[in-house]
Amino acid sequence: MQRISLAHGEGGELTHQLIQEIFIQSFGHLEQTQFDSAILTIPSQTIAVTTDSFVVKPIFFPGGNIGKLAITGTVNDLAVSGAIPHVITAGFMIEEGFSIKSLKEIVNTMAGEAERAGVNIIAGDTKVVEKGSVDGLFINTTGIGVMQEQQHRLKPEMVQEGDCVIISGTIGDHGVAILSARQELGLLTNVRSDCALLNHPVHELLEEIKGIRIMRDPTRGGLATTLVELCEDFHFTMEIDEASIPVRRDVQGVCDILGYDPLYLANEGKVVIIVDSNDKQKALDILKDHEVGKNASVIGQITSSHGQSGKLFLKTTVGTTRRLNRLSGQLLPRIC
Amino acid sequence: MQRISLAHGEGGELTHQLIQEIFIQSFGHLEQTQFDSAILTIPSQTIAVTTDSFVVKPIFFPGGNIGKLAITGTVNDLAVSGAIPHVITAGFMIEEGFSIKSLKEIVNTMAGEAERAGVNIIAGDTKVVEKGSVDGLFINTTGIGVMQEQQHRLKPEMVQEGDCVIISGTIGDHGVAILSARQELGLLTNVRSDCALLNHPVHELLEEIKGIRIMRDPTRGGLATTLVELCEDFHFTMEIDEASIPVRRDVQGVCDILGYDPLYLANEGKVVIIVDSNDKQKALDILKDHEVGKNASVIGQITSSHGQSGKLFLKTTVGTTRRLNRLSGQLLPRIC
Repeated sequence: MQRISLAHGEGGELTHQLIQEIFIQSFGHLEQTQFDSAILTIPSQTIAVTTDSFVVKPIFFPGGNIGKLAITGTVNDLAVSGAIPHVITAGFMIEEGFSIKSLKEIVNTMAGEAERAGVNIIAGDTKVVEKGSVDGLFINTTGIGVMQEQQHRLKPEMVQEGDCVIISGTIGDHGVAILSARQELGLLTNVRSDCALLNHPVHELLEEIKGIRIMRDPTRGGLATTLVELCEDFHFTMEIDEASIPVRRDVQGVCDILGYDPLYLANEGKVVIIVDSNDKQKALDILKDHEVGKNASVIGQITSSHGQSGKLFLKTTVGTTRRLNRLSGQLLPRIC
Repeated sequence: MQRISLAHGEGGELTHQLIQEIFIQSFGHLEQTQFDSAILTIPSQTIAVTTDSFVVKPIFFPGGNIGKLAITGTVNDLAVSGAIPHVITAGFMIEEGFSIKSLKEIVNTMAGEAERAGVNIIAGDTKVVEKGSVDGLFINTTGIGVMQEQQHRLKPEMVQEGDCVIISGTIGDHGVAILSARQELGLLTNVRSDCALLNHPVHELLEEIKGIRIMRDPTRGGLATTLVELCEDFHFTMEIDEASIPVRRDVQGVCDILGYDPLYLANEGKVVIIVDSNDKQKALDILKDHEVGKNASVIGQITSSHGQSGKLFLKTTVGTTRRLNRLSGQLLPRIC
């Protein structure tokens, strides 16, 4: 048995084998074999829940694969909400003919990332569709996290003028890695996706620093879209400084050639933090202690200038200031 | 705007509009606009979690659509595990060009079913892929339920010889409805999918009857596969009586013509119950009080005959007895 067949998704003997030989092998016992749901006791009644579907193309790319994205993406969403990631469910939608070897590799990657993150994969589901009805493999992951105690939660209501905006590292790496991996573009770069777990540094930040106001991971839509959403959702104005935003030289090079803006390219292992300016250095120190945060940088601040609330401004390298909006129109489909 | 475009899935302005105009309109406020996760307090620390992807073809069929399936399927999985369904997340994977009118109809159906079930849809995700990369629309739903108090939970450890097996109604309706809706088969039947919420009758059964041992909803793989799994998982032997299994005449007719066995066809609004024989009548009475249970019937019992454990036997209408196995091989892809 080397390829997935429709019968693997019918709920009968082959589905049973697939679950036993691939999923339970990697994920351990899925409680769904005894009941139709996983049943568990969680450490608190206040929880965070997030869901994400992954349709990245190609499925394997420099720096990761769809399974790594699925686990890190969901873990990171929980972490930046101020929750400790606890359990994850995984739904697989597979094209008939998909390589079982590739599926095993993806599932193993997921198991490894889940272990590193400290989460259990507790329930799964597999559907198989005819050739041509899905492009290879889509994965949905839903995560449940347990909220940290009140004093260690985010405090968006405390945001004030002068608060600093920090990004944990270079932007646009994931977007460019995916672009490069789509060979039809004929690009040759060494850029790898930044796809990585953020829950450990984020947890440390929340435990150690009282002045953390808001965190968000700037994935689809990039840093600019994420910051616009923050400005709108929480009704403040932010100014970021183009010169201080870390961008790899090769990422900038690809963007210059193809006309992309790194501010709008997806990241899969970065966090944006709004923090009390008195805690700025402490936050940078904690981030730089972790591999994923070694290029952390202060990139802007909450301001009351420009006389407007809910807006994002960019101070450009040539000294002008312009307003940034959400990503609009088509940029890069199937980036995650 | 009449059709979904790739830009609807990029995380920018159009994604924002789509979420505002379609999802928030129907589902109410999704907490994910403020944080990357929905944050909520649940009534107990003991929870049930289940995940399911829906890839049914066609997306609209007699008796329902993919959205109705997604909500009822997830609610039912939680209910038959002995949990009270509490919240659901929904992930949409949409093909470029998909009709926005159809999407709205599906999302409205989901909102209506969720309301009837008493669950909130708390988080969502939308991905759009190029034409040809997914067949229309796939939906993943993940549900979280709160376990009932100990005395109202399932008691699989209490299963004993003589316990009765009940099915809440006719089998195979969903399978035949989907078959008929695939027009290439040229079938003309009036069979509608049985797709329906089961959580209210199931809740009543668990509240009112001490002797409920196990419940399961016989979806993919049909009644026979579900019962084989129960026999294997809980190490008992079961004998069911073909003559007592309710099958609609037109469903049997389609099966006779096409060579399908209703025992292996999917159901989407049925529950199998193993119950203390003393509580059999009470269980039937409760089921028959609900529209979804009006054709409930006792179809078999736990037995110690045949000298084997973990096996399922069928007493046929011609008086012979044969062993039933899981569904094997390809029957009906994309049934749910």
